[in-house]
Order: sequence, then C-alpha cells, then structure tokens
Amino acid sequence: MSRSISHHPVLRRQAAVAQRRGELANPACEIGPGQDCRHPLVDESLNAELHRYETIISQRFLLIEAALKKISAIQHDDSFVQKAQDICQAMLGYCLPEDKLASAWVNGLDMPDLHAYCVFQSLVLSVQKANEDRAIWLKNLPLSSPVLRDMGYHTVNISPCADGRLQGLLPFILRISPAPEISVKAFAGARFDIEDDIADWTQAELQRLANEPGYDASLNYLKCVVYHFSSSSPCVEGCAAHGSDDGMAIDCAIEGLSALQAAIRNLYGLGAEPDGLVLGVDTDTDALRVHLPDGSGTVRAHQFLDSAQLFAETLPLGRVQAEQVLIDRVRAAASNPDANTVALAIGLLRANFSQLQYVIEHHNGRYTDVGHDEKFICAGEAVASLHLRNKYYFAHLSTVEEGAADLDVGIKIFTSLNLSRGLAIPILVHFFFDARVSGARQRAEQRCHRVKQAIQTRYQALHERHQIRCFLAVSDIGGTENVTPVPSSYSVSVH
Amino acid sequence: MSRSISHHPVLRRQAAVAQRRGELANPACEIGPGQDCRHPLVDESLNAELHRYETIISQRFLLIEAALKKISAIQHDDSFVQKAQDICQAMLGYCLPEDKLASAWVNGLDMPDLHAYCVFQSLVLSVQKANEDRAIWLKNLPLSSPVLRDMGYHTVNISPCADGRLQGLLPFILRISPAPEISVKAFAGARFDIEDDIADWTQAELQRLANEPGYDASLNYLKCVVYHFSSSSPCVEGCAAHGSDDGMAIDCAIEGLSALQAAIRNLYGLGAEPDGLVLGVDTDTDALRVHLPDGSGTVRAHQFLDSAQLFAETLPLGRVQAEQVLIDRVRAAASNPDANTVALAIGLLRANFSQLQYVIEHHNGRYTDVGHDEKFICAGEAVASLHLRNKYYFAHLSTVEEGAADLDVGIKIFTSLNLSRGLAIPILVHFFFDARVSGARQRAEQRCHRVKQAIQTRYQALHERHQIRCFLAVSDIGGTENVTPVPSSYSVSVH
Repeated sequence: MSRSISHHPVLRRQAAVAQRRGELANPACEIGPGQDCRHPLVDESLNAELHRYETIISQRFLLIEAALKKISAIQHDDSFVQKAQDICQAMLGYCLPEDKLASAWVNGLDMPDLHAYCVFQSLVLSVQKANEDRAIWLKNLPLSSPVLRDMGYHTVNISPCADGRLQGLLPFILRISPAPEISVKAFAGARFDIEDDIADWTQAELQRLANEPGYDASLNYLKCVVYHFSSSSPCVEGCAAHGSDDGMAIDCAIEGLSALQAAIRNLYGLGAEPDGLVLGVDTDTDALRVHLPDGSGTVRAHQFLDSAQLFAETLPLGRVQAEQVLIDRVRAAASNPDANTVALAIGLLRANFSQLQYVIEHHNGRYTDVGHDEKFICAGEAVASLHLRNKYYFAHLSTVEEGAADLDVGIKIFTSLNLSRGLAIPILVHFFFDARVSGARQRAEQRCHRVKQAIQTRYQALHERHQIRCFLAVSDIGGTENVTPVPSSYSVSVH
Repeated sequence: MSRSISHHPVLRRQAAVAQRRGELANPACEIGPGQDCRHPLVDESLNAELHRYETIISQRFLLIEAALKKISAIQHDDSFVQKAQDICQAMLGYCLPEDKLASAWVNGLDMPDLHAYCVFQSLVLSVQKANEDRAIWLKNLPLSSPVLRDMGYHTVNISPCADGRLQGLLPFILRISPAPEISVKAFAGARFDIEDDIADWTQAELQRLANEPGYDASLNYLKCVVYHFSSSSPCVEGCAAHGSDDGMAIDCAIEGLSALQAAIRNLYGLGAEPDGLVLGVDTDTDALRVHLPDGSGTVRAHQFLDSAQLFAETLPLGRVQAEQVLIDRVRAAASNPDANTVALAIGLLRANFSQLQYVIEHHNGRYTDVGHDEKFICAGEAVASLHLRNKYYFAHLSTVEEGAADLDVGIKIFTSLNLSRGLAIPILVHFFFDARVSGARQRAEQRCHRVKQAIQTRYQALHERHQIRCFLAVSDIGGTENVTPVPSSYSVSVH
C-alpha cells in the first residue's frame, strides 16, 4: 500500500470528536425562546414515522451489549440456559445458540462469539422485518418513482460516498422511496466505477427499449453523484477519501459525472447521455446542496442552492408563500430553465426541509455521533433494505485485492471500537445476484467464500486469534431474498 | 485452494507427452503412396500465407535462446557490446539494453534478465508488426464480417477455452477474420462469465439501436462456445479445466450457452436472446465439430457434424460435387432448417477443411507440441493481434484473488520449463481499456500494477529471487494502441 493507515483521514476524524459541539449554530434554524423551527413545508407526521423507524433499528443494535452483560452475570445460576434465552428473546427478539449456552459451565461463555452472533442476528432480524419496519414511512415519502417519472426520469442511479454517515441517504436526506428504478451504489469519495456505470445505464436503456409498449422517448436516465462535507469541522470530518478537502470532493463528483456523460456520448452518440445532478450533503445537519448546471450544461463547484439557507429564508412565511419563494429561487438559479431539472431541484430541496427539521428536533441541530460508532463492517455490496446513519462501516469491493485499502481502514477502526474491549470484529460479506440469471446465486456465494478467505489471509494474525468473525450472505437484486446466509459448508470450486 | 496443483490435469498432460505419436492416423486423411490429401475445397494459397505467418512469429521466439547463447560465448571479447547488438539485431530484429551489456565485464551477463527482456521484446515486436505480418493472410480469410453479416449475424462473440492450443482459433481453425464485430474472450474450460457476457450483448445491441440508420432487425447476435478435446489421448490431453473429461467439457459448453440465452430471455423478453452455436476442436488435428441445434433449439452432446469425417468423405470428389455433398450433409443434419445456421455451418466446415490440410501438410497430420512449450504467461486479458498456437499460457483474470488457481498452474508449468534451466518466468500482465471512456486507460494501468503486486505477494519467494519478471502493458479495445508498456514509475493510487 502506498499510504500509511495511521494517516487515513477517517482515523484523524475519530481522534477529533472535538469539544466543538454546540459552538456552531444550525444554519437552517436554532430552537430557542420564541423559535420552534417548525417550517411550513415540513411533513411532521413523516418525520415522526422516520424517527420511530430510527429508534427501532438503533435499539436492535444498542441493546446487544446490555443483554449480554445481563446474561454474563447469571451464567452460574440454576436454569441458566432458559433464563439467558428469556433475556435475549425479550431484549433482542431472538434466541442464542443453545449449545453455546449449555457448555458455559465448562469454560465460561465465549462472549466475543456471542456478541458477533448477536450483531449478525440483529442485522438479519432488521432485514427480515424491513418491510414491516419501513411500512411506517415507505408510502409517505414525497419522491416516489411515479413522481420522479412525472419529472422526466425513468431511472435514477445515485452514487454517494460509502461513508457511514450517508447510509440513510434515500429515505432520510433525500426523502426518495426505495424502488427498483432507484439504485444506490456507494463508493469511497463517490468515485463511482465508470465502466460499471456504463453497463448499468446500458442495461436500463435496453430493458426500456425491449419493453416497447411502455417506451416513452421523453423520459431520461438520471445520474446523481453525492459528495459530502462537514460544516462543523470542515478539514477533519469531511470526506475521508478526499482528505477532508471539500474542493477535491466536489471536483471529483463533477468530473465523474461529466466523464460518464462524455463516455456515453462517445459510445452511443450525442444526446444519448443521461441527465446529471451533483448533490452535496453536510453530514452534521443533513443539509443539501443542489448544483444546477449552467446554460451550457456545466456544473460548477461554487454554484449551488443550499437547503439550509432556503429553509431559514422561508421559515417565517406561510405555506403557499414559502413554496413560491422556493420555486422563485430555483428558477432564478437555473440559467437553463430545463423544466425537469427545475422540478427535481424544487422537489429535493422541499423534501430536505423535513430532514433539516428532523435533525434539529431529534438530534439537537447537529448529530452527536460524528466519531465512529459502527456495529459491523460490510464488505462487498451494501444491504439495500437497511437505512441507518453511521451504523456500519462499508467497504465496497468485488475482491479484497481491489478493496484492501478501504478494508484496512475498517479493521483499524474496529481495532479501537471492538478489539480494545475484547470483542471480535464482525464482518458481513455480502453480494447481490440476479435470480433471473441461471447460476448467478452460486457465483455470488462463491464470491462470498473467496472474499472471506482473502480477508482471513490478509489479517492472518487476527483470524488465528478468532478476532474476525465473517458472516456470508447473498441477496437477490430483484428483492425476493434479502441477506440469506450462505451455507458455510460450501467449498470454493476452482476452474 | 481446494485442489492440489500437482493433480492439475495440465500437469498430468505435461507428464504424458507420450510415445503414442504416429500411432493414430489423421481421420481426415493420411499422406501416403497415391494419396496427397489435397482436398478440392481447400484454399492452398491461403494455407501458404498462414504458414509463412506461423514461421515468422515462431522464429521470433525460437531464436531468442540461440542468440543469447552466441552472445554469452563472446562476452569477454573486444568490442563485445557492438558485437552483441549486431547479433541480436540480425537474429531478433531489436537491440538489447546497452547498460546491461556494458557492465558484463564486472559480474558477467545477467542471462535470466536478458532472456525475459527478449521474450517481451519479441512479443512487442510481433504486436507492432501485426498489421504487416497479418496482411499476408488477413484479406483472404473466407469468413469476414461482411460474409457473416450476409449469413445474418451483426456480431459474433466467441468463448473458447483459454488453453494455449486454441490461441490461433480465429484465423487458423475457424478462418474468421479478426474484426471489431468479432470478439474472442477465452476462459478456462470455456466457462465464460455469464454476467460479463450479458453486458457485452447489451452493449452491442444498444449500440446497434443507437445507430438507427444502419439498424436491421433481421440480423442477430451470435454466441459461439468452443470446447476442445484430444483425439490422440482423450483422457490426458483434453480440456484441463474439465479433467480431460470430454463429456463434461461438452456439457459445460451447452449449459453455458443455454444459461446465457435463458438469462437474456428472462431479462429482455422472448426472442431477445442471441443465436447460439457450440463448436468442438480436436486440438491434435484442428478438426472441427459443429453442433447444430435440433428442431426445438436444443443442442445435444452427441449430435454434431465432424469436419474430418466430411473431409474424408468428399476428398475424392470434384470441387462442385464436394461442395454439394457438404451442403447436403449439413441440411440433412439440421432438423430445423434455419437458413442462417445452415449457411454458417457450411461456411465453418468448408473453411476448416483448409486447416485440416494445413495440419496434415505442415504438422505431419498431428501437432508435435502436445506438451507445454509456452514462452510466457499472459495474466489478465489476451493479446488480440497475436494468433499463435501454444505460444503462451493464458490466465484470464481481473484480480489474482479470482484467478489464483489458473495462475498457480502456469507458475508450476514454467517452474519446469524455465526455472529448472536457470531462466526466470516472464509474465505479461495485460488489460484493455476503451479510449472513448475518460480515465479508462489510467484505470487499466492501475489494474496492471495491482495484479503485479498481487503476483509478487503470492509468489513471494520466487519474486525475492528475481525469478519472476513482470511486463505491464495495456491495449485500446478500439485497436489504435496495442500492448503499450505501462510506465513502471506509476504508483497505485488508493481511494
């Protein structure tokens, strides 16, 4: 590796969970005497629903240590096994492996093992209950596929950064409903894979053409690139992949989008390229920047609409007037009055007002967990049905060979989070398959095993001390199967 | 790894370069009294051109050791450097690095280093001269893109096995002209990557649709899967990836094709799937099997037309009559008389007659190099403009993590071929990029470096003893740049 891990900005960020909290006001609004920060365009019932969801998911992981401590304290009691299962069932909603409890009297409980088991069980439970949990808010998000279709987009492909703080992007920050037409693929620094993206675009466009009756030539494919920054601590807690240099993060997003559009133009002809939008997220407040392209279609780093500023400006107004001011501001900023882009920008900014108020009300104006508090590492592809801010460290990869640098950082973070306390590092190795493609499932399972083996080889000392616990799972891209455990007896077949 | 290298069938094959040569007659024809094996449908001038090409390419590699031996013998002579360069230039067509010769008087010549240098130089020279060398035969191959288009195919995608004995597939065995519409991606056991193939198909189809004026709905995409076997020694020298089990090799080709067609049907609708053809090659004689689908579109392992048998049957006839018998046989075998498939089968079989006669005339009816005689390992993607039988060992891979098993076999083979004689193992790490996609070249170069680093890590002992020499190169998929060396100063950037 050409760069030393200890200099990785993610780790610098961790060292700097500074005393600066409270120093900076939320630019949208601060709750105080005579100011409740309730904006006329905010959907308060949706906010309440999302908060309920956040609490449910957070509790599943937060209660693990409490439950295990209780169980640890009674391991020499009579009827220990039954009591332990009762505690676990009541607090976490599932049971522990009977055999691991039954042998406790011999060598004591293997707590790191049970802890990792629980992290994966809480994850699996959250995925299993995703439909139920998400039903609370799913139908009320303002930006659904039909709404985006009315704005002119048949498909929306979003590339945020892989940073844990953006894992709740879709329903929270953007208020977009998860759907097959909306895909999110996260990459460190939002440096998405252009070759991979061309393939995604090609597949979406051809599937639309193949399905002639529904074909509407006026619709387009939208590529969104989402960079992020930290208003509290710009040089430390910005995007780690860009060394917290916001200028670099923005330029990278703009360049990536423009390179993709140019590549598709070159490959498929002028006008074939997708529409593009660059967004920025302040991960302290979830405020959104919308970079509208100028008259020549160029996106500029310093030209954007800021949701927090617009929130503050329209806060004192009535609903109709606030809406009108928002529309006026977007139209004034759009030097090329493309109706689709204008409608989308208005929709995103208005939707984000709700998220700004959410952070103000439920997180005291700024998130407290600016440091790392992840529960597990996800290596491979992100779990689609979980929307959790800062709950897992995500290393997007196909092979450890390609993704080693990001994985090294994750291991370093968990060395401090877990190993220092005697716990193991739980790693979910997760890949998607397309059930419509024969053999795809088996290939995804083989990939899980191959990546697990490579992880164990790379971190051999940790593996030999049982300090790494891998959990292998695959999901059907069509959504009928989510995070299905891979049989561990599977042997990697070699061609 | 789940399988021991020493049991790898490629190595078993190596151990069994048996005394059996001459035991088996060529089933197409044997030259003997009253029999010259000249078939009326063979293009003899094309055969002469291809033989000239084979000789040119072979000599470039064969003369390396002779040249270096001569140079070694005179290393203490006066004016050694000039004499050495004269020898190298005369025998190989290029010079050696001046500094390596000039310092010979200190520690002697580093022959393993010069040997690896020459292998790569001969390779680069062959690629540089590819247009010139191939011009001899390129325009005379019977199956050009326009001819295939007339048969109903706008694109032909061929997946042979990665076995070195099939590296001359296109111009020699199939007599198809290399062209952008004809792609060859080799995989061990012809087990092509279905996800990757779907992406190739999607891109080709969408590019066709994007280019509306030239769109012809009657044309289709042809997917060809090519398995191989050995008539001389079926259980030892067949397809290594299938343990020389011909039944497995055939079934795998049929299943792969059928899985790809089903996947595309499922993804894009009935009728969207490409046409398919399964071919088999006898790597001892280059005889071709053409498996025509039956009335229901099913390809069967035991239903095929055999070019050697048809060659023998039509050998005594006149040109017109031979042609008619060939056409009759193909039509009789095609239970579903699809005009495209019939025309293609006739074209391939007739073209292969020339190759059968080529092997009979120039390789005494059966190839002598049934064992390994490769000059280098190619790791990554195959070089498109070189058509050499059994000249390099090919490990198709994107990462060493995924391709380690095949690479292990290559290292084992070269341990015996080169290390045992004090020479190093030359490894070409080669990847393609698409110049129309911004940044693609840089990403391909990074991949070269990453794979090189992974090779050096995996074979650390060999690397430390300088027994592995990597040469990194990239090629533009559009063909304007071929095997361009990657600057070695490049540092792998980490996101």
